Amino acid sequence: MVEKLMEHDLEELNKLLLTMAGEVERQLDLAIRALVERDNRLAEEVIAGDSLIDQREVEVDHRVIELIVRARPMARDLRLVMTAIKIAPDLERVADHAVGIARQALEINRLRPLKAFITIPRMAEKASSMVRDAIGAFVKGDSQLARNVIDRDAEVDWEFEQIFRELLTYMMEDPKTIRRALALLMVSRALERIGDHGTNIAEQVVYLVDAEDIRHRRPERADGD
Amino acid sequence: MVEKLMEHDLEELNKLLLTMAGEVERQLDLAIRALVERDNRLAEEVIAGDSLIDQREVEVDHRVIELIVRARPMARDLRLVMTAIKIAPDLERVADHAVGIARQALEINRLRPLKAFITIPRMAEKASSMVRDAIGAFVKGDSQLARNVIDRDAEVDWEFEQIFRELLTYMMEDPKTIRRALALLMVSRALERIGDHGTNIAEQVVYLVDAEDIRHRRPERADGD
Repeated sequence: MVEKLMEHDLEELNKLLLTMAGEVERQLDLAIRALVERDNRLAEEVIAGDSLIDQREVEVDHRVIELIVRARPMARDLRLVMTAIKIAPDLERVADHAVGIARQALEINRLRPLKAFITIPRMAEKASSMVRDAIGAFVKGDSQLARNVIDRDAEVDWEFEQIFRELLTYMMEDPKTIRRALALLMVSRALERIGDHGTNIAEQVVYLVDAEDIRHRRPERADGD
Repeated sequence: MVEKLMEHDLEELNKLLLTMAGEVERQLDLAIRALVERDNRLAEEVIAGDSLIDQREVEVDHRVIELIVRARPMARDLRLVMTAIKIAPDLERVADHAVGIARQALEINRLRPLKAFITIPRMAEKASSMVRDAIGAFVKGDSQLARNVIDRDAEVDWEFEQIFRELLTYMMEDPKTIRRALALLMVSRALERIGDHGTNIAEQVVYLVDAEDIRHRRPERADGD
């Protein structure tokens, strides 16, 4: 009976995480559209929508605690629910970054466009798909997919370096672009951090599935979150 | 017997978190000194020291899981150990930001000084003391102290705004300062994020002690981590 209960509980927990991940992905998508389409209403929508995501994190906490008390999971099941409780804050912070991007969009939309948006939407798609796949890897218990997500972080970091250099050139050539370039720099930084959160989640999944703690074995990525 | 065991376990867990917090504080202190004293060796020390902090987070996870399996904590004790597992990643990320600052220090130390460091060490001390007090609040179960930490986040945010404006002025007046100013901007941003992590920890403590979820009640602070 306990086992049956547990299975059902875990399914519910997975569903909750998938729902939260979908909502977070939508927030990020809207924030990027607010920027590309210069649409302040979309930015406001992202800012207003943040409290729902925050609530989801609290829901995950409550669900996990209740589950531990009631079903007393052991061994792998316990590690599974502990992983859920560590994954939810990463998702919540991705949503916070979406809000940060929406705020920058409100600022940027007041100014003349600096350039067409090509790199930023591409970078956003890469970062977003990392988070999506990391959650997918958790739900399916697929460590191969999780490792693939971890490998993709270097691409997002590389995109950030490219944008950083490009914006630096703009600023140096024409100080009138500094304010806009800085705002875009903050947007790119947020996307780079979203990739890091995808990586964090993926590392938790690898740890869970392969019982191997690779979380902190990559000295090259230690640069805040 | 189980109760006695639990008490001892919780003490050990507190000790581990305090050790980790002390090590993280030292990392940040060294990173700021690397910048102010233009000392690359200190920066290298911070970068090399990061793996120890990473290991501490893994230790906390293992300790908590082992504790749940062995002592089967209920109610408040369970919430306590779940809080520990959510606090450790915040500490680990503060240390990551210290590494980020150390990396920027290596970059900045190659260039001519832009200005005397006054605001940044002051901001670092504020952010660092927030983290220290948040951990102290957890260990002592002091929600008053935790609320005080949360209130102090606005000061750190205000310092960031000041530095941002000052650096913007430098950049606009003399494009030759852009590279240095951007590096200092990244340092200030890292400090602002460290304040956010202190706030996260403090919010967890208030939640734990007062059983009130204030974590996501402050709409004004939603700007990535």
